[in-house]
Amino acid sequence: MFGAFRRVIIGDPIHSDLEHEERLSKRKALAVFSSDALSSVAYAPQETLIVLLAAGAAGAALSLPISIAVITLLAIVVSSYRQTIYAYPRGGGSYIVARANLGEIAGLIAASALVVGYVLTVSVSIASAVDQLVSAAPVLVGARVWLGVSAIALVTLANLRGLRESGNIFAVPTYVFIGSMFLMIGLGLARIASGTFEVPPPAHPSDAVAPLTLFLVLRAFAVGSAVMTGTEAISDGVLAFKAPEPRNAAQTITAMAVILAVMFIGLSVLITVGHVIPSEHESVISILARSTFGDGIVYYVVQGSAVLILVLAANTAFADFPRLASFLARDDYAPHQLAFRGERLAFSNGILLLGLLAALLIILFSGSTGALLPLYAVSVFAAFTCSQAAMVRHWWRERGSNYLAKAFVNGIGATVTGIVAVVAAATNFMNPDYPVSPGVPIGWGSWLVLVIVPIFVLTFRRVKQHYAEARVHRDLPAQPPVHRPLRNAVVVPVARLDRPAIEALRYARSLSNDVTAVHVAAEIERRGDIEAQWQVWGEGTPLTIIESPYRSLTQPLLQYLTQLRKAERVDYVTVVVPEYVPDSWWEHLLHGQSAQFLKLQLLFQPGFVVTSVPCHELETLNTVDARRPLT
Amino acid sequence: MFGAFRRVIIGDPIHSDLEHEERLSKRKALAVFSSDALSSVAYAPQETLIVLLAAGAAGAALSLPISIAVITLLAIVVSSYRQTIYAYPRGGGSYIVARANLGEIAGLIAASALVVGYVLTVSVSIASAVDQLVSAAPVLVGARVWLGVSAIALVTLANLRGLRESGNIFAVPTYVFIGSMFLMIGLGLARIASGTFEVPPPAHPSDAVAPLTLFLVLRAFAVGSAVMTGTEAISDGVLAFKAPEPRNAAQTITAMAVILAVMFIGLSVLITVGHVIPSEHESVISILARSTFGDGIVYYVVQGSAVLILVLAANTAFADFPRLASFLARDDYAPHQLAFRGERLAFSNGILLLGLLAALLIILFSGSTGALLPLYAVSVFAAFTCSQAAMVRHWWRERGSNYLAKAFVNGIGATVTGIVAVVAAATNFMNPDYPVSPGVPIGWGSWLVLVIVPIFVLTFRRVKQHYAEARVHRDLPAQPPVHRPLRNAVVVPVARLDRPAIEALRYARSLSNDVTAVHVAAEIERRGDIEAQWQVWGEGTPLTIIESPYRSLTQPLLQYLTQLRKAERVDYVTVVVPEYVPDSWWEHLLHGQSAQFLKLQLLFQPGFVVTSVPCHELETLNTVDARRPLT
Repeated sequence: MFGAFRRVIIGDPIHSDLEHEERLSKRKALAVFSSDALSSVAYAPQETLIVLLAAGAAGAALSLPISIAVITLLAIVVSSYRQTIYAYPRGGGSYIVARANLGEIAGLIAASALVVGYVLTVSVSIASAVDQLVSAAPVLVGARVWLGVSAIALVTLANLRGLRESGNIFAVPTYVFIGSMFLMIGLGLARIASGTFEVPPPAHPSDAVAPLTLFLVLRAFAVGSAVMTGTEAISDGVLAFKAPEPRNAAQTITAMAVILAVMFIGLSVLITVGHVIPSEHESVISILARSTFGDGIVYYVVQGSAVLILVLAANTAFADFPRLASFLARDDYAPHQLAFRGERLAFSNGILLLGLLAALLIILFSGSTGALLPLYAVSVFAAFTCSQAAMVRHWWRERGSNYLAKAFVNGIGATVTGIVAVVAAATNFMNPDYPVSPGVPIGWGSWLVLVIVPIFVLTFRRVKQHYAEARVHRDLPAQPPVHRPLRNAVVVPVARLDRPAIEALRYARSLSNDVTAVHVAAEIERRGDIEAQWQVWGEGTPLTIIESPYRSLTQPLLQYLTQLRKAERVDYVTVVVPEYVPDSWWEHLLHGQSAQFLKLQLLFQPGFVVTSVPCHELETLNTVDARRPLT
Repeated sequence: MFGAFRRVIIGDPIHSDLEHEERLSKRKALAVFSSDALSSVAYAPQETLIVLLAAGAAGAALSLPISIAVITLLAIVVSSYRQTIYAYPRGGGSYIVARANLGEIAGLIAASALVVGYVLTVSVSIASAVDQLVSAAPVLVGARVWLGVSAIALVTLANLRGLRESGNIFAVPTYVFIGSMFLMIGLGLARIASGTFEVPPPAHPSDAVAPLTLFLVLRAFAVGSAVMTGTEAISDGVLAFKAPEPRNAAQTITAMAVILAVMFIGLSVLITVGHVIPSEHESVISILARSTFGDGIVYYVVQGSAVLILVLAANTAFADFPRLASFLARDDYAPHQLAFRGERLAFSNGILLLGLLAALLIILFSGSTGALLPLYAVSVFAAFTCSQAAMVRHWWRERGSNYLAKAFVNGIGATVTGIVAVVAAATNFMNPDYPVSPGVPIGWGSWLVLVIVPIFVLTFRRVKQHYAEARVHRDLPAQPPVHRPLRNAVVVPVARLDRPAIEALRYARSLSNDVTAVHVAAEIERRGDIEAQWQVWGEGTPLTIIESPYRSLTQPLLQYLTQLRKAERVDYVTVVVPEYVPDSWWEHLLHGQSAQFLKLQLLFQPGFVVTSVPCHELETLNTVDARRPLT
């Protein structure tokens, strides 16, 4: 029943031998891995502009210079990562590179920053996708949070179905998006040249003008640098490329950077010339698309492809986060369940976890792209810094050809990304518009990242320590000791004499000759009744009756069991409990889970086993005996 | 560990013999049962006024006439209930009375309406308590919802500690509240007589004036009639009074009605004369207390006692709802777990459920008393109607002395409360200020009650049907058939050879001579390793190896088990699974729950038992054998 349901939702299992066919061509890889970076042109220029607009027209004029600075930063980061790809052809994510070169703590800091970054990739991309959707259909403006959460649920499901289909589903919209952006920018530039480019003025122009401070400029830069948040993805997933993996990956990352730079600069020119002012109801992309293509079908294609590429960007994290989680699990830093590949070759648990956390952030920040973006920048640039610093160490240790030049490139990368991380954290420490709780003067902000990363690092280390201890406890000694057979006493608690109780008794008697039945009597007057019934049904098994003046049925039973184990000097006391199994799941709620409860109570005391014997609703004692193969 | 924690929070268990000491004196009973009705003067006059103020001063002038109409209604309802108390001295709640006289459906409608009503008692009382608190400490105005949810959590905990202490804790504030209201009304009337009564005008007077329609007046009346929502409580809990129960209960209900009437009329006079206009930041009680007593200590005593009596009102429902739930459970309409009295004589599950539902309503309605009140009136008056109509039938059937007069009193009651229920539902069908989801044009409103009540009725009947069927299936036949012993095959799945696996194997061998070990091999190359290890550790038990090309470990195992059961023609296949038990609960999350998962998969197939053998972190094989009493 569960199985069939899962098939429909998640798809048929994939054979292990098919694993290698999951490798991606460069074109597909660009769609899967670069969509995060490419799609960020849908929000990074816009949010940079919004920060600058606080200083009015003087601020907005800085939009283009800042985007040029951001693209310079992109060039530095991508050059650094090309080196990483060749140095770590088996996948050089920040975690692996930092751990290999700078040690455990640096690796775990990078991993924690990446985990936060991946969650934010999903939240930010989906929040921006909702922005684009709302621009095209303003009636949805009130349902922002619900739309975001639903979209995350859908992407999560798609990913539980496995990586290969994700690549196929999303390749088309990526190229439609790139094409439509290029077309829009080209048409726009042509109109600027011919002097016919015009953007309608906003409905509600803001008149609040703050001074244009250095703080504001730095903040705008930090927000804009979020455009390169997807760069990490390719170097982390080199192994998913077709052979030769490193060359294909390096070419893909360069192609991505060039496309991204053209789009970002082009959009900034249009924004500056057109004096675009985005609002809660309409995004920059939507305003530009509307004034370039009019309100017709082309506009909806642009918005549609923007929505889809943003969803695809969220999807990137669903490929990367579970992979990182499985690395961490394999190194004993995370629960081993995260390393378990599902039937469809996807890491199911990691996928579910990511979807849940991203949806939570959407709810906390009311689905606001602008509020989520600074956190995103902090976490991603912190991971960049760890990774680049580690590469400097890597070249230094290796001392191969041109090692000084290579170390210099990564050194520049580490320094610049480190500065950006600090700037992003400092300029967005706390956002008063998103209070932690209504009426409390503490807002969400980049401090959240600064708190979570150390907590993660400590947790990772504690988990590793646990697994190390558990391994010692679980390991077998060198030689098996000569074991005597274990002694086992079987107890059947009988709450009332019915078919499930008799079935449990019969099962218990098949396990052992040492069976005792126990009845806990809350109303001691009824003692006689149960004893008389037991004469008929007990098959000669002794019945012990325990009084319970406090009505608790569990406590006296637990006492009895502990005493019994001592008195009879047995290795195990096995408690056999009947469990009535109704036909349908909801009927389960109508029957107490006493077996489960008892098991929990006895779990931390060695020497007790609780067994529940299912007794099915549809069978009566007679049909059971008919079904039974022997008579 | 769990036990000690529970002791601190919930208190020591109470012996069954102490049950009778839990009976309440009239004075305590007034505090416990009447606080709901008495405390409603903190919100009913205010919300009536707010509805009327939509029509400006002309509306506000109707405040006193409407309160007189409400008190007349109260007199009718209380007269009816006095008759019920004498007719049903063992407790005459609407459910019991309606079921006994009008049949199952009427009883279940009454029960459903009561359930909704009890949940709303908690939500409304707590929402109003927060209003009073915010009036005294306006800085908390943003934290309304959190304050409400926290207060509900506290009351829930207090009730898990049991009824008797609740009575003691809350008796004082009830009488302080009654005293301070009487003092305030007395002083106010004296000042009116001397012409010195004056209330400061509101900070933000509203200028929006709607026409004074009949609809508005009816709506105000429906909201005001919420003042008598607690009347049911006493007739439902006659048995909690000291002997003679019916007389004490009837006297208490009359005392309550008189106190309530004096306070309601008194407050309405002060409101009308003083032209009081409440706001989001200040309640009517707070405005009147401030202008009567000034801003000093007495003001804070008044507000404090108002907060406490409202919390006590919420507490009423915690006494009544679990009792009703236990009646329903005893009649098989609700899950039997709700009939289970905890160690402190309280119905723990019912208490928890009530707290959760009430907190949910606070969240849905953003803690607004005014928005919750109409739902409250609908549900309570629906229950009143069922109960009064049933009493008419009761007298008619009995034909005792004065049966016509008695039937007439209840007939008037049924008619009037029925009309009020319809009016309350019609005038508050949908509240556009509380949309179901942002952007959706459907608001929460009394339709919620009209939807939930039928759903409850159907669910109650379905549950009863299930229990009836289950009883047939569970009942033993008249004579025990002659049973042969059951045949049981024991299987130990071995994922990897470690101490828990060996412990599970040894345990399995203590159950049966027919033990098979099974290893599901995802990587078939490692087959040789496990077979070699098994030679050393397997103690001669046969090992079966199953291939799993799809990496799923469960599916091939399930197939194997099903085949085995058929092939070996056994009654049961017992699957013994090792369960590694770490020292602390969080470490549990680091180990998969494979036993639990397997059990769920096999639950609906008859003939399988899954047993997990706990293997404790702190014990090694050697210490286990040392601990073992035999060698």
